[in-house]
Amino acid sequence: MPETERRRPTKTIHLGNLLLGSQYPVRVQSMTNTSTENAEETICQINNLVQHGCEIVRVAVPDEKALASLPAITSSVSVPVIADIHFRCDLAIKALKTGIKGLRINPGNIGSTDKYIALLRELASFPDIALRIGVNAGSLEQSLMKQVVAGELRWEQAMVDSALRYAKIAEEEGFENMKISLKASRVMQTVRAYRLLSSQCDYPLHLGITEAGTPLRGAVKSSIGIGMLLSEGIGDTFRVSLTGDPVLEVKTAYEILRALEIRKRGPDLISCPTCGRTQIDIISLVEKVDEYISTIPRHIKVAVMGCVVNGPGEAREADIGISGGKDSGVIFKKGQVIRKVPYERLFQAFQEELKRLLEESEDE
Amino acid sequence: MPETERRRPTKTIHLGNLLLGSQYPVRVQSMTNTSTENAEETICQINNLVQHGCEIVRVAVPDEKALASLPAITSSVSVPVIADIHFRCDLAIKALKTGIKGLRINPGNIGSTDKYIALLRELASFPDIALRIGVNAGSLEQSLMKQVVAGELRWEQAMVDSALRYAKIAEEEGFENMKISLKASRVMQTVRAYRLLSSQCDYPLHLGITEAGTPLRGAVKSSIGIGMLLSEGIGDTFRVSLTGDPVLEVKTAYEILRALEIRKRGPDLISCPTCGRTQIDIISLVEKVDEYISTIPRHIKVAVMGCVVNGPGEAREADIGISGGKDSGVIFKKGQVIRKVPYERLFQAFQEELKRLLEESEDE
Repeated sequence: MPETERRRPTKTIHLGNLLLGSQYPVRVQSMTNTSTENAEETICQINNLVQHGCEIVRVAVPDEKALASLPAITSSVSVPVIADIHFRCDLAIKALKTGIKGLRINPGNIGSTDKYIALLRELASFPDIALRIGVNAGSLEQSLMKQVVAGELRWEQAMVDSALRYAKIAEEEGFENMKISLKASRVMQTVRAYRLLSSQCDYPLHLGITEAGTPLRGAVKSSIGIGMLLSEGIGDTFRVSLTGDPVLEVKTAYEILRALEIRKRGPDLISCPTCGRTQIDIISLVEKVDEYISTIPRHIKVAVMGCVVNGPGEAREADIGISGGKDSGVIFKKGQVIRKVPYERLFQAFQEELKRLLEESEDE
Repeated sequence: MPETERRRPTKTIHLGNLLLGSQYPVRVQSMTNTSTENAEETICQINNLVQHGCEIVRVAVPDEKALASLPAITSSVSVPVIADIHFRCDLAIKALKTGIKGLRINPGNIGSTDKYIALLRELASFPDIALRIGVNAGSLEQSLMKQVVAGELRWEQAMVDSALRYAKIAEEEGFENMKISLKASRVMQTVRAYRLLSSQCDYPLHLGITEAGTPLRGAVKSSIGIGMLLSEGIGDTFRVSLTGDPVLEVKTAYEILRALEIRKRGPDLISCPTCGRTQIDIISLVEKVDEYISTIPRHIKVAVMGCVVNGPGEAREADIGISGGKDSGVIFKKGQVIRKVPYERLFQAFQEELKRLLEESEDE
């Protein structure tokens, strides 16, 4: 039984071979923070992101030097690459020939409608490439921004209007392979904007909270905003924006999907908050277990519990669990206590039993 | 204009002098992970939590040794202390005389109804003390657990039934100074349980996702679950459960409240995700700014942006902001670019301008 309500029905679009929309899984994106000009470093970072489960990668293309790296990058990685281009329609048109599968433009700074139409006409020759109309509250179209500042239009309505105006122009040019995003740094403003948009079009939506901040702040803001929308069936792909290593963005993204029981990748670790009842060093044990299981792609449920109050109850739901007692602990496996071991051998015993569990279930 | 819908109306209860319910701010709780037996260490941790904004602190009381420390602890700290007691009604009764302002019991393990009634009759002599009926999915009452396992009752209904049965017994004894919590490790199960409960009683609710896990996992799960409920007006106090330093629980709690624009404490830092456009070392700059502003209790909005695309737009909303360019950056203040400085002097210039901003606004 899925935990979230049904996905909001959308068109299906494609970034090369990757299909996106309500008929397909919610896809995890990230964005490189290397200099795109440096193809080698960028490829290396993309490959690292892919290993952690990233399925679509965006790169910034601010100038011709970055543009020159795109063919090497797009031909060296296994996921669709999206070029993120601001201000320069000419650069966007040149980027179409570099093997990218997506192009992100921002209505607020792409220039005149004429330039946008020229871009759309070029796009017609590249059926592999999807367009993202990426509206950003901080760089809204001037005319709409004025109305917002004058109090004539709400932020969320202005963002939706900007996106739909650009979508309509594309439709008039016969182009529909597009998705839309409406990012703002205020969480509930973002949520309201997406809710509004979701009722007014059936394009796939890319979710994100922009300028989300340092890892803790960003994880909180993105979890609330993206989590709320996904739980309502809104959103077909998303990026968790963090100021930090983009691998953390991907890890956080899967934590959100796992928490909502939408997509599962790798083990789910539950661990009790430590408290005065804890009789073993639970924090260091959890850290060791977390590190150890991070290389397992299979979805299993692992529990590390510090005491007898919650331990047995929660560990009963886990495929494998450790519960601590005084100087020693027990290993649970699928509801059964299978071993009692002294504390200093607890982690080793856990490793042994986890290996056995994975081998056993492979045979099934 | 508040960002969340109106709070669900509740009774007002009190923990000593602290009033709790929909007429009062959503209160931030945490739980110590020191040994309660060690009064000195526990007091030290509570004081540290209070410095970070914690308003209610829970301590585990597993035995007589922990009980013996309670008078020293409760008389040394400035916030209400809640004793968390499982299995032993006798210990709970003894704890009432130690200066605690709250008692948390778990219907799943407190013993017989008779023992619970005996506790309630003792509670009548301590009008300062609030009771929390803390249901936990992992340690549900046996009779209800059997019905859940047999598929006769849904988890969330069983949790609500357990809580309301215990609330009703208390009411029959004339006791109403209580709040309720329904914790589970599955996020959407928890959300559904609270939604169900919120429509069936008007006691204040304590929110939490139990066994939320390591800081990243826990922050994500708590942000989604607690964030979703708070945005619906459900919840009067909450704890973010993390396996780690409880100060992180309090920091995460305020990030949730800040993201929802429910309560503001300290500066709000927005920073852009780094990307190929970034021309300055934004990550280390953000870390330095984050550390520097963490001691400011006042709520101000600080922005650290890496490039010209989002920088000026977002920094316009901030009280003070840094936006990076090539080898140099600018300081914004209330919408105005006030200084352009070389990169190596950017942080120092920011410190100077922030100090000036705080001094200026003090005079107002």
